[in-house]
Amino acid sequence: MIKSEIKENSPVLIGILGAGQLAKMLALEAYKLGMNVATIDGSANTPAGDMTSNEFVNGWNDEGELDSFIEKADIITLENEFIDPKILAYIERSKVVYPSSKTISLIQDKFIQKNTFKNAGINVPNYAEINSIEDAKSFGKKFGFPFLLKARKFSYDGYGNYTVKNEEDAEKGFLHFNPDNSGERPLYAEQFVNFKKELAVMVVRSSKNEVLTYPCVETIQKNHICHEVIAPAEIEAKYQKQAQELAVKCVEAIDGVGVFGIEMFIDEDNKILVNEIAPRPHNSGHYTIEACYTSQYENGLRAILGLPLGSTEMVNNYAVMINLLGEREGSGVPSNVLDLLKRNKVKLHLYNKKSSRVGRKMGHITLIGNDLEEIRKEANLAFESLIW
Amino acid sequence: MIKSEIKENSPVLIGILGAGQLAKMLALEAYKLGMNVATIDGSANTPAGDMTSNEFVNGWNDEGELDSFIEKADIITLENEFIDPKILAYIERSKVVYPSSKTISLIQDKFIQKNTFKNAGINVPNYAEINSIEDAKSFGKKFGFPFLLKARKFSYDGYGNYTVKNEEDAEKGFLHFNPDNSGERPLYAEQFVNFKKELAVMVVRSSKNEVLTYPCVETIQKNHICHEVIAPAEIEAKYQKQAQELAVKCVEAIDGVGVFGIEMFIDEDNKILVNEIAPRPHNSGHYTIEACYTSQYENGLRAILGLPLGSTEMVNNYAVMINLLGEREGSGVPSNVLDLLKRNKVKLHLYNKKSSRVGRKMGHITLIGNDLEEIRKEANLAFESLIW
Repeated sequence: MIKSEIKENSPVLIGILGAGQLAKMLALEAYKLGMNVATIDGSANTPAGDMTSNEFVNGWNDEGELDSFIEKADIITLENEFIDPKILAYIERSKVVYPSSKTISLIQDKFIQKNTFKNAGINVPNYAEINSIEDAKSFGKKFGFPFLLKARKFSYDGYGNYTVKNEEDAEKGFLHFNPDNSGERPLYAEQFVNFKKELAVMVVRSSKNEVLTYPCVETIQKNHICHEVIAPAEIEAKYQKQAQELAVKCVEAIDGVGVFGIEMFIDEDNKILVNEIAPRPHNSGHYTIEACYTSQYENGLRAILGLPLGSTEMVNNYAVMINLLGEREGSGVPSNVLDLLKRNKVKLHLYNKKSSRVGRKMGHITLIGNDLEEIRKEANLAFESLIW
Repeated sequence: MIKSEIKENSPVLIGILGAGQLAKMLALEAYKLGMNVATIDGSANTPAGDMTSNEFVNGWNDEGELDSFIEKADIITLENEFIDPKILAYIERSKVVYPSSKTISLIQDKFIQKNTFKNAGINVPNYAEINSIEDAKSFGKKFGFPFLLKARKFSYDGYGNYTVKNEEDAEKGFLHFNPDNSGERPLYAEQFVNFKKELAVMVVRSSKNEVLTYPCVETIQKNHICHEVIAPAEIEAKYQKQAQELAVKCVEAIDGVGVFGIEMFIDEDNKILVNEIAPRPHNSGHYTIEACYTSQYENGLRAILGLPLGSTEMVNNYAVMINLLGEREGSGVPSNVLDLLKRNKVKLHLYNKKSSRVGRKMGHITLIGNDLEEIRKEANLAFESLIW
């Protein structure tokens, strides 16, 4: 049933921690299924907040605001993994929240995340905790240069990453994160993987323990931000299957309920290594809105509600998704989308962010079809024809 | 551009007259394109009103409320044709509204609508104005029994229709609408068409005069309400084309801008006759959400904004849509959708109406695929497994 457990005869009200584009696309699917939505975020006029009168704008660190939000919602989910697990534990005292505080506490710190996966027998690149310049130097000596120095928490889209090119660079890298050499900002190092492709798999796992995977896709980054997604990835069927199995193992290792994006590398020996997990709808799964029978957003909702999961099969053979990143400061509305819309099979999503920054995710486009070369070409032409 | 002409750097805000399921599905597409939405309706807690903080609940007959709504919106559209054209003309003094007051005044009265189409050389069933019992009797003598006696205004889903079986029944029919024999409620009569199939075509026509049609579909009614839609209709290609051309002619005859549903009959001689037009997204076009590159809702928005229209092609060969009608009085939330959701390629839409009535449109399901028999069977099994 899509019925509130709490208020008899009322539809479920989904509370979303966050109100950005992922919350927006989640809200669209909730509405489609006859549900209602509340958002909580530190500001007003957000992509998802604009779509509901249940908009809580003082953020979850304001206890009164959080309590009102919890009271309003029947069940709660999130759109980013940076929320303090203590907030989730607080919510859990009165309402169900997925992913749970336990799941988030196993992955928010990426060093702990790596340990979690390694202990579950999942292939990950070599990594180590880094507490000093010396630690950084020894990591490079042991696993080779270049390697990656990473903030353990709150990094995304390449923010919080530093590539250490050689031994001297180790010091520079450490001081980049800890200018006073204090080691206060926790770091870890990760071996550089000479990958053939970057891959991603969306996994949906319900509170009734039903698990499904979406096709393994290829993600192509520009400046550390996802630029293009090709679904399915052009890899042999056996690697498709391996990637999907690995992704399920990751979600099971953190007892995840909801929808999860697992980023992976396939290296030159066709070895698949897990990079990281996102405990929420993921950029690499936007294509599922049009390309699959059930989108990652709808299945995320079904999963947390314990409803039967929808088919993750694709309706055509291929899909291509391209992110629309801000190319200037200023208005969040592009100057001209006419030429893009003239490419009449392009599906355009704009997030209604109030301002644009260079590199900020402002929207995306998706093409579906049975000829990959054709839709990829069309997607790129559409992408190039947008004027900010 | 999807940019407000009025408020620099702001996204367009679409004002919708009405807040039911059509407004809801329109709002979903507006949000997807980064736009905002306002609704106006005579009550709160409506399907679309629940999706926005710009919800005007005192209705358009409250002048202050209407003025605030007009002020808020950049451009205005509607979800039903029962609004007084005078209201639209009032709006037109300050904002663009599509369909226009002129378009609505040509079709709201169905006798005038028939005249409009007949004068444009469009095939319609024989019809006549009925002002007395005598008029009704003569119509039957001239065109045969049974025939249909219809209210000229505000009829839908068979409400406002009376089937006159024989000469004696003519009096009963007339008095059904005008119990005091006053003739105050304007009527017209329409010849009964012995149709092979009922058809419908969605047409989208932009303010820049770009016109596209969706595939001609078959609509199957139960108790005068659309039960099932099969896309495309199983008719020869030449009749597909004829139906589409006829539909475009209808929209041009009323200078329509926006999206329009044209209901037609194909009779036993394969003659296609226009039944009526709906100047808005139409039940027979719900399938386009999943089945076409661009839905009727998105194209309706593109049309009124003068944006290039999206492709109306289908992404698979076939689609089947079944309406979910209320089967009892009470809550608008079904008791159990689990068995329906287990059929995992079914796309479920629930409208979030606050209460159910027998026969009320509460939601719909869509199946897409390349094997019509298979998806039709699956759609019907899903339909039967829903528990109200």
